[in-house]
Amino acid sequence: MAYELYYWPTIQGRGEFVRLALEEAGADYIDVARESEGIAVMMRMMDHAEHPPLAPPFLKDGDTIIGQTAAILLYLGARHGLAPKDPAGGLWTHQIQLTIADLVAEAHDTHHPVGVGLYYEDQKAEALRRSDEFCENRIPKFLTWFDTILARNPAGDAHLVGRSLTYADLSLFQLVEGLSYAFPKATGRALKQAPRVAALHDAVARRPRIKAYCASPRRIPFNQEGIFRRYPELDR
Amino acid sequence: MAYELYYWPTIQGRGEFVRLALEEAGADYIDVARESEGIAVMMRMMDHAEHPPLAPPFLKDGDTIIGQTAAILLYLGARHGLAPKDPAGGLWTHQIQLTIADLVAEAHDTHHPVGVGLYYEDQKAEALRRSDEFCENRIPKFLTWFDTILARNPAGDAHLVGRSLTYADLSLFQLVEGLSYAFPKATGRALKQAPRVAALHDAVARRPRIKAYCASPRRIPFNQEGIFRRYPELDR
Repeated sequence: MAYELYYWPTIQGRGEFVRLALEEAGADYIDVARESEGIAVMMRMMDHAEHPPLAPPFLKDGDTIIGQTAAILLYLGARHGLAPKDPAGGLWTHQIQLTIADLVAEAHDTHHPVGVGLYYEDQKAEALRRSDEFCENRIPKFLTWFDTILARNPAGDAHLVGRSLTYADLSLFQLVEGLSYAFPKATGRALKQAPRVAALHDAVARRPRIKAYCASPRRIPFNQEGIFRRYPELDR
Repeated sequence: MAYELYYWPTIQGRGEFVRLALEEAGADYIDVARESEGIAVMMRMMDHAEHPPLAPPFLKDGDTIIGQTAAILLYLGARHGLAPKDPAGGLWTHQIQLTIADLVAEAHDTHHPVGVGLYYEDQKAEALRRSDEFCENRIPKFLTWFDTILARNPAGDAHLVGRSLTYADLSLFQLVEGLSYAFPKATGRALKQAPRVAALHDAVARRPRIKAYCASPRRIPFNQEGIFRRYPELDR
């Protein structure tokens, strides 16, 4: 039975981390909300499920519904060889994913520092201040950390964990994609100090299934509604 | 061998979610940074470990180092009977924990909406705006969600998952503690609409080990350096 992915149909957002894992795994899945009536189905499930997710994305596998991006990847990683089988390696992969999620949340807040309920235009002054800190301190801090753990991987710096691809590698690819779209100048500077991160991003981009996916209409282009938005004034 | 917990020694912060699980489990642990030279040891580990956490808290169990609060609880929950043994129940518990973590991050950002590198006093105007949204929309949204999943638990509304205590129950207790400290008015209003959450909080507070811990000097009082801070002007 095909997985059912539920996420907003017009943005990459957090759902993209799940889409990339499903695509790399060659898994059979339906991106439900992109079909007609899909959003209505998604909203009904959030209202009525025994285990209702607070927010999309969530994944349905038979009777099991899983919310929270990192939890979905924990589930998929174990099923599709996208995480080490040993518990310590699996937990380390998950820890990296949660750290990626932290920076994703901060990237969102650069354009919504006051609240999700308001437009960007109504919090632009705050966004400028927050983005200063984000570009100057947070992007370099996180990308340097990823570079460090790549350098310390005893199996080599081609992957974050062990000698094989994990969902954390895919997510780091997507993080770099998003940051490079939203903050090209700041991210470019930070990547020069994190060459292993840049190399991993490029290697993931060349993987046949990821390359085919990114060239397909299934890959929604970045836009001004997602988590990663290009407001040039915020890219310091 | 005792667990070693590494976290800032003067605040509850994210470390408190781990402390509560260790206390309820009756686990032998050392709160390393509260001992002399402890902070220096913590900083050295973050610099030099093969799996360096980006930030505290982290837990050392023999040779294993685990960062990210939710990952630590995933690890401890399985070892100390604080999570269901079945994979679906374990994942649901983790999903709830990640949702708690989301609100904890938002609570932090009420007093630091612009950036962690600046003082509250330098971002007070932004903090007032962000707290409006937090008090009016976010606290009610999350507490209502917890109330809903308690109501839908087929095993009854005494616990978030199944019929036994999990680390998610302990974390929800701590979330309510923190919100009630920082935003007594807004949280009081929201808890009236989430009576199951209030009841679970009170039941956890009465558990012998939690009660003893909270009365002990090991429980650091809330203060103006932690995640949950009481700035009365932010409590709308």
